[in-house]
Amino acid sequence: MRDVAIIGVGMTKIGKFPDRMLSSMGREAVIAALKDAGVPPKEIQAAYSGTSLGGALLGQRIFKDLGMSGMPINNMENACSSGSSAMREAWLSIASGLYDMVIAVGSEKLSALGGGTLPLEKEDLEVSGGMVMPALYAMRARRYMHEFGATPEHLAKVVVKSRRCATKNPQAQFRKETTVAEVLNSRMVADPLTLFQCCPMGDGSAAAILCSLDKARKYTSQPILIKGSVLVSGRFDNSFRDMTTPEITVRAAKQVYEMAGIGPKEVSLAEVHDAFSIAELLYYEALGFCARGEAPKLLDEGATEIGGRIPVNPSGGLISKGHPTGATGLAQTTEIVWQLRGQAGARQVKNAKVGLTHCTGGGIYGLDHGACSIHIFTK
Amino acid sequence: MRDVAIIGVGMTKIGKFPDRMLSSMGREAVIAALKDAGVPPKEIQAAYSGTSLGGALLGQRIFKDLGMSGMPINNMENACSSGSSAMREAWLSIASGLYDMVIAVGSEKLSALGGGTLPLEKEDLEVSGGMVMPALYAMRARRYMHEFGATPEHLAKVVVKSRRCATKNPQAQFRKETTVAEVLNSRMVADPLTLFQCCPMGDGSAAAILCSLDKARKYTSQPILIKGSVLVSGRFDNSFRDMTTPEITVRAAKQVYEMAGIGPKEVSLAEVHDAFSIAELLYYEALGFCARGEAPKLLDEGATEIGGRIPVNPSGGLISKGHPTGATGLAQTTEIVWQLRGQAGARQVKNAKVGLTHCTGGGIYGLDHGACSIHIFTK
Repeated sequence: MRDVAIIGVGMTKIGKFPDRMLSSMGREAVIAALKDAGVPPKEIQAAYSGTSLGGALLGQRIFKDLGMSGMPINNMENACSSGSSAMREAWLSIASGLYDMVIAVGSEKLSALGGGTLPLEKEDLEVSGGMVMPALYAMRARRYMHEFGATPEHLAKVVVKSRRCATKNPQAQFRKETTVAEVLNSRMVADPLTLFQCCPMGDGSAAAILCSLDKARKYTSQPILIKGSVLVSGRFDNSFRDMTTPEITVRAAKQVYEMAGIGPKEVSLAEVHDAFSIAELLYYEALGFCARGEAPKLLDEGATEIGGRIPVNPSGGLISKGHPTGATGLAQTTEIVWQLRGQAGARQVKNAKVGLTHCTGGGIYGLDHGACSIHIFTK
Repeated sequence: MRDVAIIGVGMTKIGKFPDRMLSSMGREAVIAALKDAGVPPKEIQAAYSGTSLGGALLGQRIFKDLGMSGMPINNMENACSSGSSAMREAWLSIASGLYDMVIAVGSEKLSALGGGTLPLEKEDLEVSGGMVMPALYAMRARRYMHEFGATPEHLAKVVVKSRRCATKNPQAQFRKETTVAEVLNSRMVADPLTLFQCCPMGDGSAAAILCSLDKARKYTSQPILIKGSVLVSGRFDNSFRDMTTPEITVRAAKQVYEMAGIGPKEVSLAEVHDAFSIAELLYYEALGFCARGEAPKLLDEGATEIGGRIPVNPSGGLISKGHPTGATGLAQTTEIVWQLRGQAGARQVKNAKVGLTHCTGGGIYGLDHGACSIHIFTK
């Protein structure tokens, strides 16, 4: 299979836009990506549109009013990994030689659902009994604190870092700095996770234009290579075996590092799935940025700050940039592309050469199984 | 890209099963396909699961209780083409060389929705004004009758043929023969389309196991080749230009015949998207089985009967076999595989060498844009 590059990205601001149509947000991201790539719509040969709760034929609803009707449009869903799943299929469609230029877009309007879910059937006994996402992550947090001596302050510091980054990101949902005390004093959601430690409900869209590397240089002097693209399924709620090891992420990480021929020590920066404060700490370890139990130390040392050894979530991450589920994978990609090009403004990571994006989740139905998708990008 | 074959298929009976979980129907189809292929679950490297209204993470919900967790699972949606879109991505994932063996499954439980839709946002003015599917096809029927002299009896004869085929199909939702008079006297839905001329709401699932051709012979002496796999998007409701030409199908047909290197005259049998009686007539022409305006003649001559020149919908089609939307593409595939292997029992088409499946639609939201997917298979 051949090399694939990203030649354009774009995204909306993330926030609550109940009066705005989801497809309109999708169009804004698509237009931004087309403009960024300098590609006319007619050169796009196929589209992959990701959404978790945005409803049927979202791709068609986005593209029809852009004069981009005719091409194959696939609508993809994989809970929180919907956008990254769309990107992986777009990658495959070019890597295979089937197409030369393809767009991936991810979009979500969680405000339209009022924070609810769309259960067709209740299949999960534990979730019916209360094991919803904040409860699951709260249990993980408690166990992690017990095993490795992390404190509530460590959890709060993840949020403080996140907000600090987001003040530098015009696309972010929350852009006001916070303090450890403010985080810990915010309303308790699921002990020890307070409100500020949970990612917000949000709306938004992001898009990326993928192109075979051999044609990419026609459009840009800065193609961003997709060196690794991995999707796995598995038990998302691993709580009955080892609560502090997100097995699905560990497995996907192993696969993507192997595929890219790049190890965790070579990663310049990462956008990881910090749906809750504890999640970021667990994923430091699962992605190999530090050893088991050493995430609090990594955080305390400032290694994951924008100026640190391995900056994590310079965009503000899910907790502050926001988490419109189906858009997240492509919003992460947009951030990494901007960073690798040196276009990230006040939050620019110096010498950014290798970027990683990580999405994982299940549980739109609270399902104990889910998906994890990791991508590795290089200049 | 390399050749891909189908080595196993399976499907549930189609009907209304409100007390049965959708994922359980999916598992039944998957197990049947695995058994048919003689493949142990652990050899499946990836899955594509299609559904239009079945909700999030359906693939995970199907596979987790089969011990098939871990592999990449993609959930695909494309309205009535959801199942065939899943199959096309499965085909691509093998044709590209990424995987050797992949399963595609399509599932739907329309009875759980009470016949309703899931509108997140109302985007379509015409649909809000009443241009729902039966109305659209009724207008097409009226125009076709005006242009080409078709009669209500022609429409009814499509249903009579459909029911006659379905009496020979144990998987079909409706298995009782009917008459022209009975069809015409059934309740009027949208003039001239009576109730019997509209496909029913149904539940069910179907699956296919795809394998690289070079490995397929290890499992079967009868691999069925996928010679053409096409997906297009476009204006589904073409009513403002030419109501009797389904442009999206005409375009997809042109592409798939070119890809397969096979023309319409070489097709032995076809499963086409007869969501309404008039649809089957329009698709005879759009797929090139007869010239413009000659569909009623083709039907009158018996050419599309099981014993005819070009049997269409020997399974009973959407009108009688049923139309659980996300399952339909793979149910069509299952029928074609059985026919090409000579395993279709009482409805076997003699000398079946080339089979075609055709799905098209939009309009789960009544959207004027949609998808069309056509596949061509050979022995």
